[in-house]
Amino acid sequence: MRHKSFDTMQCPIARGLEHVGEWWSILILRDAFRGMRRFDEFRDSLGIAPTMLTKRLNGLVETGLLERRRYSEHPPRDEYVLTAIGKDFRPVLLAMMAFGNRHFPPDRQTVQIVNQQTGARVEPVLVDPTTGQPVDGPGYIVVTTPAESVA
Amino acid sequence: MRHKSFDTMQCPIARGLEHVGEWWSILILRDAFRGMRRFDEFRDSLGIAPTMLTKRLNGLVETGLLERRRYSEHPPRDEYVLTAIGKDFRPVLLAMMAFGNRHFPPDRQTVQIVNQQTGARVEPVLVDPTTGQPVDGPGYIVVTTPAESVA
Repeated sequence: MRHKSFDTMQCPIARGLEHVGEWWSILILRDAFRGMRRFDEFRDSLGIAPTMLTKRLNGLVETGLLERRRYSEHPPRDEYVLTAIGKDFRPVLLAMMAFGNRHFPPDRQTVQIVNQQTGARVEPVLVDPTTGQPVDGPGYIVVTTPAESVA
Repeated sequence: MRHKSFDTMQCPIARGLEHVGEWWSILILRDAFRGMRRFDEFRDSLGIAPTMLTKRLNGLVETGLLERRRYSEHPPRDEYVLTAIGKDFRPVLLAMMAFGNRHFPPDRQTVQIVNQQTGARVEPVLVDPTTGQPVDGPGYIVVTTPAESVA
């Protein structure tokens, strides 16, 4: 079953989901941030069916989050590299990581953000860079505005 | 087709996705943050098939992100309220909103975070609360550690 297209919705969350696709795409992006570029690397990491992986990689290239680069002519082989847009998805993944760590803790090992200088584990917070205050707190609201008023 | 369960994976992103489910669940959570609680409200907002909506609401209750509350006995009617865990998913949604606004701008109207005091539009940044520095920048790495060393 094809998902209903959310692209007609004006909500940026819906638009983000539309362009990033679904779970597999998000996990492919995660692996791309871990340095993976090649089809076999993604396949081995995710245990995903090759046809599904091809489809998701093509989708991520089409929407501009990954760029396809040929690294071998004989045989023809491509690798997939994060674009600037793709790289900008990282905070979404890191926010998801913090949520997963906080509420669904693992039994064996975990992945976390660490301050390289101090070695401290970081619980990241989404803030307004102007004030340093969390946007998920008092003083901040989510409003709907006409697109033309948006810079 | 049932998604492969990512729950066996130790990655918190995969675990987060496992528990939140997929697009519909994320959009249901979005609407819950907008104040919706009732089946009909979610259905009208999302244009989702009732069977699918029931399934997703049940899933979100099972994983503890929504709580089911009976608001009428005759006829029996439930509403769905965000739990503490559900509320904590909001930064993920806000990060996704910022990503959608930045890269897939809408044509008509958009939804954005606004500083209530100044009226300024906010481009939120995910930071280390200890230093105020963006975690998606130099000085921060993502590491895999044994769970027993995690507080």
